[in-house]
Amino acid sequence: MTGATVPRDAPAWNVSRWFNVDGAPSLSSLRGRVVFLHAFQMLCPACVQQAVPQSLKVAAAFASTDLAVIGLHTVFEHHHAMGPDALQVYLHENRIGYPVGVDAHRDGDTARHPLPLTMQAYAMQGTPTLMLIDRQGRLRRQRFGLVDDLRLGAEIATLLAEP
Amino acid sequence: MTGATVPRDAPAWNVSRWFNVDGAPSLSSLRGRVVFLHAFQMLCPACVQQAVPQSLKVAAAFASTDLAVIGLHTVFEHHHAMGPDALQVYLHENRIGYPVGVDAHRDGDTARHPLPLTMQAYAMQGTPTLMLIDRQGRLRRQRFGLVDDLRLGAEIATLLAEP
Amino acid sequence: MTGATVPRDAPAWNVSRWFNVDGAPSLSSLRGRVVFLHAFQMLCPACVQQAVPQSLKVAAAFASTDLAVIGLHTVFEHHHAMGPDALQVYLHENRIGYPVGVDAHRDGDTARHPLPLTMQAYAMQGTPTLMLIDRQGRLRRQRFGLVDDLRLGAEIATLLAEP
Amino acid sequence: MTGATVPRDAPAWNVSRWFNVDGAPSLSSLRGRVVFLHAFQMLCPACVQQAVPQSLKVAAAFASTDLAVIGLHTVFEHHHAMGPDALQVYLHENRIGYPVGVDAHRDGDTARHPLPLTMQAYAMQGTPTLMLIDRQGRLRRQRFGLVDDLRLGAEIATLLAEP
Repeated sequence: MTGATVPRDAPAWNVSRWFNVDGAPSLSSLRGRVVFLHAFQMLCPACVQQAVPQSLKVAAAFASTDLAVIGLHTVFEHHHAMGPDALQVYLHENRIGYPVGVDAHRDGDTARHPLPLTMQAYAMQGTPTLMLIDRQGRLRRQRFGLVDDLRLGAEIATLLAEP
Repeated sequence: MTGATVPRDAPAWNVSRWFNVDGAPSLSSLRGRVVFLHAFQMLCPACVQQAVPQSLKVAAAFASTDLAVIGLHTVFEHHHAMGPDALQVYLHENRIGYPVGVDAHRDGDTARHPLPLTMQAYAMQGTPTLMLIDRQGRLRRQRFGLVDDLRLGAEIATLLAEP
Repeated sequence: MTGATVPRDAPAWNVSRWFNVDGAPSLSSLRGRVVFLHAFQMLCPACVQQAVPQSLKVAAAFASTDLAVIGLHTVFEHHHAMGPDALQVYLHENRIGYPVGVDAHRDGDTARHPLPLTMQAYAMQGTPTLMLIDRQGRLRRQRFGLVDDLRLGAEIATLLAEP
Repeated sequence: MTGATVPRDAPAWNVSRWFNVDGAPSLSSLRGRVVFLHAFQMLCPACVQQAVPQSLKVAAAFASTDLAVIGLHTVFEHHHAMGPDALQVYLHENRIGYPVGVDAHRDGDTARHPLPLTMQAYAMQGTPTLMLIDRQGRLRRQRFGLVDDLRLGAEIATLLAEP
């Protein structure tokens, strides 16, 4: 892991709707697996052109029984253009098969509360942001922006190697 | 030019709304310039990841007084997710500054007439599609899918060199 | 063409050995065709990783009856490691089929005259350098370093379109 | 690790000359570290364009106290063009700073014994080949051809995580 941060428990997810999954994945339901959580917006260019394709590669490279790949749609601007119906089209067109949650807004009111709740809980600075959560549910890595494949592969495998 | 097709006059554009421009560009108003017309959908992966970035490079590489770069939003599916308001966000986020028109649907009714009118007039097979129109307004090249930069640069310059 | 330089006749080539061709191509023998001349060294990283692959793409994209692609091995350092025998291996391994000439050194003496003669005649600053010569044999473009595919395609086609 | 092979002790290296290092690295001197061993030829296109640049990225991404990056120049063809003096130029031009050994030929006779000894001992099929050796000196991965960055990063980190 780059940086030296005291690991803390990953904050809970506050999701208004899930796609590609029955039920609602949670940190406790995923305990025992490493979680690759990537926050994106469907109209953010760096997300669409680089971070989401990388997430698809991650999902293909690791067994889902070891690594859970989870997308989080953290819309903090242009809410009218990135609602759940539009997201569903985006997921379909990009053949994204792993679970994706819609980050919830307080009272469901994006006008008064544009910043979604999970994004706030993690103190994300923007999109794309990737997070790695270890088998004990601790947030071990959070990165705003892009990470190269070589280092990302190494960071994931380092957590996978932990008991 | 690849292929050997008899040039024909480019069909007129049927656009319900223009972005990034005052007034409505038309083939006759652009007569004398070469036109690079690229049809896309804002949620089509190959458009977003490759064709639109290439169009931005084309717009940067050639003087707009010689070459008019025009985008055409030819939505033929998932209309609810790709309306003009969503397109406006897309153009803003991707810093697209050249004129982009919304291809019109008959009676403005996307449910009964999902295929837009200009797309039909050009017999486009899907998105992305690029078209090159010469200084006389003739359609000289139409290609569904991607074209590599080297050949595209050559095709544009070939038309620019014509009187 | 970028820049505004008065075209001058391209200097003659001074080549000690040709590969991939019978006889010795010259500017006068190529008169009537556009010439894409690219100077490289087989152990120059930017040449090997980018400029030579681009030259192969150029050779594939244009008809050789219109455009003559010519390589020039302008060795100005590490002469012992880049002699004609090593070059022959390089051409074979990289499947380079267009004519490549070895830029000659005065008196064939690389120790006393490390800079080869054609490189001097063109006042090249290093490798890779690409040059475009028009149908009349005039040097219309010379560029040290890399050029992107879109602009290169356009520059070649602009010269091809001239009578 | 992809595939399921019984690990065996990595064969010893038979090197006629080392670059970029004092003394001669050996598997026993590196015991305790993971070893990324990459076999290449300086005139093999896939080596030069992809495998060597990837090895430089690996060397930059991991601490050398954890991971030893070692190049092995396994020349099995065109020996006259890829001797040690030419290799030295190649290493210099490509700014390769990690240790690189020249794989030895029996009796130093490349004409009678074109295949070098270490290449034979590992039963390599060609170049590029990458090998991963664990902290106990066992060969855990051998791959002829290219491996993508994401998987390579993961494979290295998996071995680094072992005691």
